[in-house]
Amino acid sequence: MDLKNELARRTTMFNTFWQQYLSVGKPKTLYEAARHLPFAGGKRIRPFLTMVSCESVSGDSLKVLPFAAGLELMHNFTLVHDDIMDHSLLRRNLPTVHEKYGEPAAILSGDLLFAKSFEAVLDAAVDFETYKTLEKGFIDCVIAICEGQQQDMEFESRKTVSEHMYLDMISKKTGALFELSAKGGAIIGGGNEAEIVGLTTYGLALGLAFQIWDDYLDMSSDATTLGKDIGNDIRNGKKTLIAVHSLSHATGTHKKLLDDIFGNRSASEEDVKKIYDLFRELGSVEYARQRAVQYTKEAKNAIDLLKPSDAKDLLHLLIEYTIQREK
Amino acid sequence: MDLKNELARRTTMFNTFWQQYLSVGKPKTLYEAARHLPFAGGKRIRPFLTMVSCESVSGDSLKVLPFAAGLELMHNFTLVHDDIMDHSLLRRNLPTVHEKYGEPAAILSGDLLFAKSFEAVLDAAVDFETYKTLEKGFIDCVIAICEGQQQDMEFESRKTVSEHMYLDMISKKTGALFELSAKGGAIIGGGNEAEIVGLTTYGLALGLAFQIWDDYLDMSSDATTLGKDIGNDIRNGKKTLIAVHSLSHATGTHKKLLDDIFGNRSASEEDVKKIYDLFRELGSVEYARQRAVQYTKEAKNAIDLLKPSDAKDLLHLLIEYTIQREK
Repeated sequence: MDLKNELARRTTMFNTFWQQYLSVGKPKTLYEAARHLPFAGGKRIRPFLTMVSCESVSGDSLKVLPFAAGLELMHNFTLVHDDIMDHSLLRRNLPTVHEKYGEPAAILSGDLLFAKSFEAVLDAAVDFETYKTLEKGFIDCVIAICEGQQQDMEFESRKTVSEHMYLDMISKKTGALFELSAKGGAIIGGGNEAEIVGLTTYGLALGLAFQIWDDYLDMSSDATTLGKDIGNDIRNGKKTLIAVHSLSHATGTHKKLLDDIFGNRSASEEDVKKIYDLFRELGSVEYARQRAVQYTKEAKNAIDLLKPSDAKDLLHLLIEYTIQREK
Repeated sequence: MDLKNELARRTTMFNTFWQQYLSVGKPKTLYEAARHLPFAGGKRIRPFLTMVSCESVSGDSLKVLPFAAGLELMHNFTLVHDDIMDHSLLRRNLPTVHEKYGEPAAILSGDLLFAKSFEAVLDAAVDFETYKTLEKGFIDCVIAICEGQQQDMEFESRKTVSEHMYLDMISKKTGALFELSAKGGAIIGGGNEAEIVGLTTYGLALGLAFQIWDDYLDMSSDATTLGKDIGNDIRNGKKTLIAVHSLSHATGTHKKLLDDIFGNRSASEEDVKKIYDLFRELGSVEYARQRAVQYTKEAKNAIDLLKPSDAKDLLHLLIEYTIQREK
């Protein structure tokens, strides 16, 4: 079982399928703006998770394609709007939608993708009761993502954020969608109650591990190639788990250093480097790594109850991938 | 039958009902921003239309409240985002959401209202087949509104726009939601095929009359009190039906005047007044008035087939109101 091959195979299938929700319409600019990000690549981890979850309860993964398309459309819509809010210039190595098409078209094309995501969910071939569960889950997930994004933005201007608050934020901003991807696959695949609960727990834990590993990756890169993003995150006072850990453990001169530099928009390269080093010195980088690993263990335990299958193996490989990837 | 009383009665009922979708959550700022516009008043014409349509086919209007809430939430979401795109400062005599809460929270709170609108539609107590029709109609309506808004923005930078293009734009931006309001009421109320078609036609025609009357009102106000909005619309080259008519009928010096001033962002007060006068001289203001009246006749004819009822009388009064209102 090779994760890369299996991911590629399903991604090809998925990419072909979801294009029906991304056809060209008029006005042309609106539709081009809406297609920009979906056609810019992307790992399609969430649709893959939905498909494999479904397979792991002996379901037919072709049946989950509409719901998976809904999730991926929704994911893309939130990225388009988030990039506007965060003033991001690049995404997937291309100009962000608002950079390329202007902010009004970016807002509208996000709205269009949002509408299209519901079209896809409506296409899920299930009975009314199951549909209601999926649709309600879908709506709650968007709401959670909105709440998480707002929290994330508000955190930047806060002096400190507790680990509990941080985990609540990423549970909403990143975890909710992973959770629903796995849960939706299990439901549509006809999993029993225990399997659905197990895969739901798996999805959330995987999402948290994924997000914390992202935080970790950003800060564990070689200091000699210290990227622009790290500098910006430190200058903007971005509350990653690493920052949260350092802020709550620093004392004395360390605390003063953080007070002076972390969240200081005019901090010099040299100052940024000091914080970068401090994060390691205080053990925060290693702490984040361990927390990510811990969540992957939780994910692994949650699917113990599934009967052995290729899909179950893939779910395990996905866990390993989450904390082995280097970008 | 008094329209004002009947509207007030149903608006009170509606306002009480839809608050369940506007409860306060966390983060507080996000929810306050989302509640800002819904609680800033508004005529609630669309929910009224849905309720009365339902009653006109002998349906129980209490049953349409969730769908009506969905439509009004969606309407409010589009207004929040449109105001960002149009850089509007005021709405319903209050600061717009982005003026009060900043653009990021305004984008997010619009997204939240959008999500909540689907929650309301899901609450419509109907069977799966009917639900699918309503949900598909709802999604298509949002998409139409996005397309219409993009067209409207693109029209500003165009030299000319044909009447056909203008009508296509307002059919999407304003007409689609009126159409769905009436149609949804008819469907949920259990109307027969002919009644549903009649009320659908009524809704669209009413929406077009409503929008054109808005254009007309803006330009028919006394020139001595020539508002800031009129000046801005002329300076921005806004393609109202009046402007569209003048642009296609002006010749010679009139045409030159329009070429020079209409859409010229630095036009003086005096120049703006010239265009304002020209719109009347060319008969464009009167033309728009007549077109609005024409659409109300279409709306009236479309519901001829309904059997006599208080609700039918209200639908007639709503037509009269549309082209009698002065704001």
